Amino acid sequence: MFSGAQISLYPMCDDFVAVIMDALGALDPYRDRLRIETDDISTLIVGPPEVIFPAMRDLFTAAATTGRHVTMHATISRGCPGEPDDPICTPGTTPPEGPVADRIADGLAALQDAPLTGQDIAAQLSFYMLGATGHMDEIYGVIDLIRASGVFERPKNFCTKLRGDAGPVMATIYESFTRFGPPDGHVTLDLTLSANSPSPR
Amino acid sequence: MFSGAQISLYPMCDDFVAVIMDALGALDPYRDRLRIETDDISTLIVGPPEVIFPAMRDLFTAAATTGRHVTMHATISRGCPGEPDDPICTPGTTPPEGPVADRIADGLAALQDAPLTGQDIAAQLSFYMLGATGHMDEIYGVIDLIRASGVFERPKNFCTKLRGDAGPVMATIYESFTRFGPPDGHVTLDLTLSANSPSPR
Repeated sequence: MFSGAQISLYPMCDDFVAVIMDALGALDPYRDRLRIETDDISTLIVGPPEVIFPAMRDLFTAAATTGRHVTMHATISRGCPGEPDDPICTPGTTPPEGPVADRIADGLAALQDAPLTGQDIAAQLSFYMLGATGHMDEIYGVIDLIRASGVFERPKNFCTKLRGDAGPVMATIYESFTRFGPPDGHVTLDLTLSANSPSPR
Repeated sequence: MFSGAQISLYPMCDDFVAVIMDALGALDPYRDRLRIETDDISTLIVGPPEVIFPAMRDLFTAAATTGRHVTMHATISRGCPGEPDDPICTPGTTPPEGPVADRIADGLAALQDAPLTGQDIAAQLSFYMLGATGHMDEIYGVIDLIRASGVFERPKNFCTKLRGDAGPVMATIYESFTRFGPPDGHVTLDLTLSANSPSPR
């Protein structure tokens, strides 16, 4: 199953290039488990979800700890039928099946192990399950998991907003992505992260 | 049918607040046909597609003409079953049905009327059709439309990249959003725009 993300890091400052280049060092511990390609609009990272989510967390946290207002967008996908299979994507664990309520409970249990980073962030995500009916039941499962996660902020039109330490926030998004939708199905996330915004909430 | 977008404008400069505030004037001609709500991570614009796409084009073009590196992300949706219906969203035209080939031809004909803005941009989009099977046929229809649009740049994993004047680029994205997927179905776009990037393509 092919999985990965197109990610873009946006520091709102004149020296945005330096902030991005400095933050990229945070990807070094993951590079041997990812395929990475960059152009002028986004960077592709191909790998299994248990590698791409910590990699995104550490990249964004590194940029956020500069104190600048930074955001990151990620288009995350697994199981896309149009993509070639790639051994680097093989997840280390089997995606769970079973009733939505059980998957929420198991996801919440897994969140207990999420490390803290010391960096507060906001996030909002849209979860999409493609090529099958019943997608709203899975979306409501994701929303229920997030509501109980401890990092829920509020529902919004088209998306759900989270806020808290980057560790539990990204762990909650990882659980949302991997526990909902069919294990081998086509599932995507439209994800935005934000730190140090001067705007009112 | 509820339709709208969560949009975020990101100027990569120290005076990002001023660039955003100045660009917001570009929304004035559309405000009476949109419902707008802002928080610290995105701005919701609710309205029919034929209003939200020109509004996004003019907002982004206004920011891009400062010459700063600016990007914009939009999570665009129509027909989401979880959203209340809203009279402000009613489109002025009936969404088309029929064979994919006919919709591509009609979309390309409509693109002939796209105005030029004088501002070059890059864009990448992921088209999602939810709650139904056959989504890849509609996605391939979108890709074929974009390939023939005159503003196609290249395919990428998880998305398709466009480049050209903001007028035809946004018109192509509008045609992709409104001519594919069921007329009353749940369809979303994960869209990124970029201008004045210093990065190699």
